[in-house]
Amino acid sequence: MQNAQKRPILAITLGDAAGIGPEVSLKALLSQEVYRASIPLLIGEGASLRLTNEMLGNPLALRPVTSPEEAKGEPGVAEYIDLGLLKENGWALGKVQAITGEAAFQAIARAIQLALEKRVQAVVTAPINKEAINLAGHHFAGHTEIFSHYTGTKDYGMLLASPKLRVIHATTHLSMREACDALTKQRVLKTIQLADFCRKLIGLQGKIGVAGLNPHNSENGLFGFEEHKSITPAIQRAQALGIPVEGPIPPDTIFVKAFAGQYDIVVAMYHDQGHIPVKLSGFVMDEKTGQFSSVRGINCTIGLPIIRTSVDHGTAFDRAGQNLSREDSMLDAIFMAVRMAEHLSLIQEAAT
Amino acid sequence: MQNAQKRPILAITLGDAAGIGPEVSLKALLSQEVYRASIPLLIGEGASLRLTNEMLGNPLALRPVTSPEEAKGEPGVAEYIDLGLLKENGWALGKVQAITGEAAFQAIARAIQLALEKRVQAVVTAPINKEAINLAGHHFAGHTEIFSHYTGTKDYGMLLASPKLRVIHATTHLSMREACDALTKQRVLKTIQLADFCRKLIGLQGKIGVAGLNPHNSENGLFGFEEHKSITPAIQRAQALGIPVEGPIPPDTIFVKAFAGQYDIVVAMYHDQGHIPVKLSGFVMDEKTGQFSSVRGINCTIGLPIIRTSVDHGTAFDRAGQNLSREDSMLDAIFMAVRMAEHLSLIQEAAT
Repeated sequence: MQNAQKRPILAITLGDAAGIGPEVSLKALLSQEVYRASIPLLIGEGASLRLTNEMLGNPLALRPVTSPEEAKGEPGVAEYIDLGLLKENGWALGKVQAITGEAAFQAIARAIQLALEKRVQAVVTAPINKEAINLAGHHFAGHTEIFSHYTGTKDYGMLLASPKLRVIHATTHLSMREACDALTKQRVLKTIQLADFCRKLIGLQGKIGVAGLNPHNSENGLFGFEEHKSITPAIQRAQALGIPVEGPIPPDTIFVKAFAGQYDIVVAMYHDQGHIPVKLSGFVMDEKTGQFSSVRGINCTIGLPIIRTSVDHGTAFDRAGQNLSREDSMLDAIFMAVRMAEHLSLIQEAAT
Repeated sequence: MQNAQKRPILAITLGDAAGIGPEVSLKALLSQEVYRASIPLLIGEGASLRLTNEMLGNPLALRPVTSPEEAKGEPGVAEYIDLGLLKENGWALGKVQAITGEAAFQAIARAIQLALEKRVQAVVTAPINKEAINLAGHHFAGHTEIFSHYTGTKDYGMLLASPKLRVIHATTHLSMREACDALTKQRVLKTIQLADFCRKLIGLQGKIGVAGLNPHNSENGLFGFEEHKSITPAIQRAQALGIPVEGPIPPDTIFVKAFAGQYDIVVAMYHDQGHIPVKLSGFVMDEKTGQFSSVRGINCTIGLPIIRTSVDHGTAFDRAGQNLSREDSMLDAIFMAVRMAEHLSLIQEAAT
């Protein structure tokens, strides 16, 4: 076991208690490797944790703490800060409800606060339900918007990562028409800069590849102008700033090239340009059974003053409380948070 | 060997002689399986074929014929119609030039004519260079436009197929903005109908899945309106017509579902929505060496009065004449042409 002082403390928010967040979080803590690399600290509801631990056959000892400083990080012990907003009853598994939305929201707010105070080194989030959050009166589209709001961050990006592919998006939840309008030179340049920061956070040495927007990169303006007007100028400016970046690369070949190792990170112009290949790349087939296993990916908000990684799956209300869910994505999110926290401290040391 | 009368005759156009088309075509004819399934008939330039066969160590006997009726389809014998537009010299490998563009174009025109006259049962095309075709005075964007022009076809679609995924596109070579405008209910419906015809041509029994346009299918209009305005009404109309079709499915999950066997064919709304997953799915990694092998896919023009399949790679001028190129995609295109020709004759028999 590494010196406890050196392990980063990870605040793991349990997500909506009606979903599979508590289950995948507790299952991840069954891994000794998690404790070798970090001090995991769950943030959420004791009542939900007890229920989940029982459903799993009580594999972990549950130990409430009141602050990160109390956490010891002993394998087999799930330490948690209990917000105490849920009782043993008064809420239900598998249902959109304001009470679990409120609890999930408050856990996130607490984790962000602890990270801003540098009392935890990263936040790892389990899934929430947007509707439940909004029913509870918190009008946010999702985690990313909550994090940007409470950290006062305007320029951020979403990194999607599967074991083979890392993608950062210049636009996400916009219609295709709005995405075309939003792709200014400035926005593309900022995304490249975020990708470059991301390279450093993950400790990668390779190049960034930037996708075009239109088919065949618009074939010299034959169908589309954004490559010429915004994307190429942004890449040239980034190169002048010393960032190892190439492009635009035709959208239908850049991901094959990234798979083949030519790019550490791909800058995608819109949501599905990046999400389609990441989801396919995280798709694992068992050659023996011919069965496909669940998508394995994570996402991270890049550009915040704190580290935030997340599972890349939803609350799966229909599977909650049934011991059916796998913790792979949560483990990937935890280890990515550790990696980013370590590199961030190196970057900060180098800067001082 | 099957009765020669029953094997479909395939007109295989050799593509631009300066590229790898003649090489992959001859290599495909080394397969006995090709002759068991078809009578392959090359259409192109004898001078180029002789050069290529020599480069490969003369593995095949070359036999010129003047008409499809003369072709015997004997394994080991490459039968070809020589257009005689190229001599032994006066053109070069690996170069964009009008003379090879002209020859490639004329081979396509001849093959289309033979197919329209029902003297061949399908056309399989090796890659051409658009610039060379245009230098030769033929102003077409590519094969598809040539085929649609010479067969007088207005409503057609492009099917992309890898071993695991089949996709047909509602729009292709348009900018993203133009694609958004082009996605009318009528266009989506016609593409679904082409997909249904395609199912029959390939002999598939499963369902068609239709992708949305916007991220998350626009989340009930939160970002985008095309799902509501055009895509859903087109799907409903197609269902009323008895076509087994579902959707819209969020663009970032539909391909994972198709991989898992839920859809035989996916209807994609724009070029890269379909090309990104097909190219990734055709991407094969050798687990032993960790090396990635070339993309393996084909494309087919659907909706023509004739069958047309094609390799899904380019002329690769930089690799021409070096015996570096693999014939996998050409073989896939040949066997798909055979399959479609057989089903088309069944469909036509059933209709009479």
